[in-house]
Amino acid sequence: MNNQFYGILPDIVDDIIANYNESDLLLGKTEKKLPVRSTIIDILNDLRRLLFPDYFNADRVDMNNAVYYTGQILSNLHKKLLHQVALALAYNDQIHSADSPEILQKSEDICCNFFKTIPLIQQKIFLDVQAGYDGDPAAKSKEQVVISYPGLYAIFVYRIAHELYKMHVPFIPRTMTEYAHSKTGIDINAGATIGQYFFMDHGTGIVIGETTVIGDYVKLYQGVTLGALSTRGGQRLAGVKRHPTIGDRVTIYSNATILGGETVIGKDSVIGGGAFITSSIPEKTRVSVTPPELSIKNDVKATLSATNYIYEI
Amino acid sequence: MNNQFYGILPDIVDDIIANYNESDLLLGKTEKKLPVRSTIIDILNDLRRLLFPDYFNADRVDMNNAVYYTGQILSNLHKKLLHQVALALAYNDQIHSADSPEILQKSEDICCNFFKTIPLIQQKIFLDVQAGYDGDPAAKSKEQVVISYPGLYAIFVYRIAHELYKMHVPFIPRTMTEYAHSKTGIDINAGATIGQYFFMDHGTGIVIGETTVIGDYVKLYQGVTLGALSTRGGQRLAGVKRHPTIGDRVTIYSNATILGGETVIGKDSVIGGGAFITSSIPEKTRVSVTPPELSIKNDVKATLSATNYIYEI
Amino acid sequence: MNNQFYGILPDIVDDIIANYNESDLLLGKTEKKLPVRSTIIDILNDLRRLLFPDYFNADRVDMNNAVYYTGQILSNLHKKLLHQVALALAYNDQIHSADSPEILQKSEDICCNFFKTIPLIQQKIFLDVQAGYDGDPAAKSKEQVVISYPGLYAIFVYRIAHELYKMHVPFIPRTMTEYAHSKTGIDINAGATIGQYFFMDHGTGIVIGETTVIGDYVKLYQGVTLGALSTRGGQRLAGVKRHPTIGDRVTIYSNATILGGETVIGKDSVIGGGAFITSSIPEKTRVSVTPPELSIKNDVKATLSATNYIYEI
Repeated sequence: MNNQFYGILPDIVDDIIANYNESDLLLGKTEKKLPVRSTIIDILNDLRRLLFPDYFNADRVDMNNAVYYTGQILSNLHKKLLHQVALALAYNDQIHSADSPEILQKSEDICCNFFKTIPLIQQKIFLDVQAGYDGDPAAKSKEQVVISYPGLYAIFVYRIAHELYKMHVPFIPRTMTEYAHSKTGIDINAGATIGQYFFMDHGTGIVIGETTVIGDYVKLYQGVTLGALSTRGGQRLAGVKRHPTIGDRVTIYSNATILGGETVIGKDSVIGGGAFITSSIPEKTRVSVTPPELSIKNDVKATLSATNYIYEI
Repeated sequence: MNNQFYGILPDIVDDIIANYNESDLLLGKTEKKLPVRSTIIDILNDLRRLLFPDYFNADRVDMNNAVYYTGQILSNLHKKLLHQVALALAYNDQIHSADSPEILQKSEDICCNFFKTIPLIQQKIFLDVQAGYDGDPAAKSKEQVVISYPGLYAIFVYRIAHELYKMHVPFIPRTMTEYAHSKTGIDINAGATIGQYFFMDHGTGIVIGETTVIGDYVKLYQGVTLGALSTRGGQRLAGVKRHPTIGDRVTIYSNATILGGETVIGKDSVIGGGAFITSSIPEKTRVSVTPPELSIKNDVKATLSATNYIYEI
Repeated sequence: MNNQFYGILPDIVDDIIANYNESDLLLGKTEKKLPVRSTIIDILNDLRRLLFPDYFNADRVDMNNAVYYTGQILSNLHKKLLHQVALALAYNDQIHSADSPEILQKSEDICCNFFKTIPLIQQKIFLDVQAGYDGDPAAKSKEQVVISYPGLYAIFVYRIAHELYKMHVPFIPRTMTEYAHSKTGIDINAGATIGQYFFMDHGTGIVIGETTVIGDYVKLYQGVTLGALSTRGGQRLAGVKRHPTIGDRVTIYSNATILGGETVIGKDSVIGGGAFITSSIPEKTRVSVTPPELSIKNDVKATLSATNYIYEI
């Protein structure tokens, strides 16, 4: 019976190879080599162990061994990241290979700049933990936020990826944030700018586009989209500011949608759940949706007044 | 070139250790030790094998070997859970350590109470499988529901976690439900109360808050939020009933939002997709959204009547 | 102390076995054996390596070794898929076992038909990569789309699963698409019909029901539901066309909901974000939601006109 399969196999092989030949997606036609996704995930795991010792592995860290613990993780991280950044830079370089002195030096510069920012990133993420604890009545402790909150994981990965994005590293930032997206349902583009003390509750379905700017002390709920009005321009829109600006201390409740590069939500404003906003809102404003008329069918509807359905934050 | 990195490493190490020192998030400063997330996931996997033999591993269970199969899984589960519960209890205990007789006895009491409820949990989850099969025309078999439905996985994990939540076990219930959230996009707080024969179709984006109460024979679709009206009170709201109550035999269609601790959806009611509800609805009521006016631009709009867009369940 | 647990263990074991006995979910009561989920995931991983060499493993493929690379992956795939399909067919067969000549021959026929379609599937998925690159201003390269876009992963898995669905293979197609759902938040039923050059941006929360028909050059955003008006008919609705039809070159923006088996969105139409549609829309139509009135509370609301809140695509 296997003859049946092996009889057709050569033709299938030929057709697949013909597809390879006709496509520009087969990397093996050149010397190009992409960064390795599994190593990028390793780097994120190492960084999480560095920022939050004791939480995600059996190692115990106290003030006696902290210098060895951090120094060892950082040394290993350096080796991994240096190689991945070199692969990413060489991929987009027409001339130099990943092991050329030019690429290695550029990669080392990027790595050193990145590692210098880690203590500051760590401080920001500690503040994000505090924001999660302060902002959620269901949070039993800050430790619980660190261990299990998807919003914290997504902002942790974003803050790492954003530093590499600012240094124009190709591939790696997006690969990092899409990994977090897969684990949390929260899609933050590494290009977005996000202030300190940031909290996303529940988180599933949140989308924060590439040119979004978010201030300090902002809180978002599940399903919030900070997006573009239209992307019909496709690649012609690359680099254009097409996502909104959110001021300090703004809260945006679940499933609200805010679109457009010129849309600014003024500081201290509150956006109600389900709002759909495509133009600017002044500061200190509460926007709530007057819900669409509800059609209610039963024998007691006379007892309900329409105003029952106005959502007041 | 490596000298470049090793030249800056000591300063980075110092700065990270300074962050450890200033933060209350470094556990190593005390003797505290958290429950281990990977073991908690193991416990969930073992429980799934116990409740649904033959589905998730190669072992075959029939009436001849069932006593050995179940006894062996339960014995192993007992060891793992006893230790994790002891870690969780000791973490929140100012005096006793995880291996003290006091903590071990309390942990053993909790484990025994939990294990006694497993047969009842299993019966409830078998009913949830039936609900998934009965409620979804795309379900080809109950076996398919067991193997692959995210809604079933989320309610399975919730029913386990809820028992531990009721026994005031710290950390572990939330870690369980957030693992399910990560795998399914369904965020059920372990504190919610959910009746029997419960089905969530598709599931992504569902949020069920900590103080929600749900009756029997309820069906939810993707994107449904059962949430709080406002969480600006933060930790001051901990313990307050702030999420809605859903009566028996209620169906809530996709992306509907129901908010507030005093909001009650009466039994036998149907809530249409996209509804936004912040006050109570009587029993046997059908609530549908009169969609917002649609702006339609083309040459044939005269042929459309506005009533085309009224959604009738 | 362990005596406490071992004292209650026999009763718990008895109760669990009683549950097994009373349920039709214990497979071990028959000779039935289900396909293995982990092997089905392996098959998807192998297929991804076949379609996109160089992207997801260390192997390099060029025109010198492509025949060995593809032939070897295909041979291994054949062994795995043949066995899983045989298990799935035998499970639903009252008479023949998975290793009977009848089931093996039927499984081999299905596998050969499936493998013959792989080159065509590959061409379609290459077009989907192009659609992702062309449609997203944030896409830096087609390679980035291949490595990290969840929408591409979901359509890749769907295109594989749909071929097996069309050949009436039980269990396996749904297990494949639910795995993709778990990884991406995108729930495409394997029974849906989807044309070429298809792109889903961000993706989380998208639901595409079993009897949906989608044309060519269609673009969907996060949270779009293509669903059924009501599923209260449960299993009586199995096989009925209950999900919409979407014409060529239609774009559907975020969180729009389109319901009903008789609902047709005409070709070249654009559906705005948040639209809720339950009847047909003619071709070349732009549907946008006139947002519900926003209640705005602050001192400067006089400066805002209502028309600020009309969303124009």
